[in-house]
Amino acid sequence: MSADLAARIRASVREIPDFPQPGINFKDITPVLANHTLFAEIIHALAEPYRTADITKVVAIESRGFIFGAPVAMLLACGFVPIRKPGKLPHTTQRIEYALEYGTDILEAHVDSLAVDDRVLIIDDVLATGGTAGAAADLVRLLGGNPVGAAFVIELGFLAGREKLVKLPVTSLLCY
Amino acid sequence: MSADLAARIRASVREIPDFPQPGINFKDITPVLANHTLFAEIIHALAEPYRTADITKVVAIESRGFIFGAPVAMLLACGFVPIRKPGKLPHTTQRIEYALEYGTDILEAHVDSLAVDDRVLIIDDVLATGGTAGAAADLVRLLGGNPVGAAFVIELGFLAGREKLVKLPVTSLLCY
Repeated sequence: MSADLAARIRASVREIPDFPQPGINFKDITPVLANHTLFAEIIHALAEPYRTADITKVVAIESRGFIFGAPVAMLLACGFVPIRKPGKLPHTTQRIEYALEYGTDILEAHVDSLAVDDRVLIIDDVLATGGTAGAAADLVRLLGGNPVGAAFVIELGFLAGREKLVKLPVTSLLCY
Repeated sequence: MSADLAARIRASVREIPDFPQPGINFKDITPVLANHTLFAEIIHALAEPYRTADITKVVAIESRGFIFGAPVAMLLACGFVPIRKPGKLPHTTQRIEYALEYGTDILEAHVDSLAVDDRVLIIDDVLATGGTAGAAADLVRLLGGNPVGAAFVIELGFLAGREKLVKLPVTSLLCY
């Protein structure tokens, strides 16, 4: 990834202390979205490593993942598949439950959203502990798809999230 | 709008009876998203009427609106501003409360997300009763922006939602 792009993303991200809970220094990406040249560069940089990877579906995680995943799907000329919180998708779903620090969470995708030969790129805004992204990769596998990679705008390297994404190539544009 | 594009969207939308509650015939757009040529045509058709309208911000409503709004913002080379459910945006927000059939709902945007001279295109997947889209337009005005138009993939014409969007040009690609 371009060091220059990383520096410009970092300069644009707004840090919000103690959000959504005390002790978390939240990375607010809305100033990045408001800057159309930076946003377009990010979309191109997320897609670039996968241009010749024969990706057939981009899977993105609700709801900030949608903001990056949909334009990346357009650039790669492949279908877009939303992974959502429970109860949001109207058709029959496959769900996966995964552990959080305290308790569990659930993600869902439509049962017919992937085909057995689908080559899937997973997109989200931030890779933190890797719990959500790892569950998304497992959900892709449950649906018969083949996760080829996972791409994030921001990686919180100190949380070691990519260790949860074993066997899955991970790219991020900016690592803290 | 192209009648042919409308027919192809209609053929791809999946109708889900009684979702999310009895009596509602939900329009499931996930098969549309999975079809990359159709998805790309939709993005271009949403943006087309606004190519020369000097739009400076695309505002989209969480969370299906993000899937269409982000690529439209890229096409129009303008910033993207998310409108979200309460408590999701980390910085100081402006909120608007609006009436539903039973009770009320709330939308929020960051207080610094729009400038006084911003020309705003509002994007969402479906225009139903117009309550949400009308609240989004009012929120844009509260933030000092100038709503120039609202564009939807699907319009449920029998709910007369565009009557709630007085003085705002409305386009939709497919009307039921």
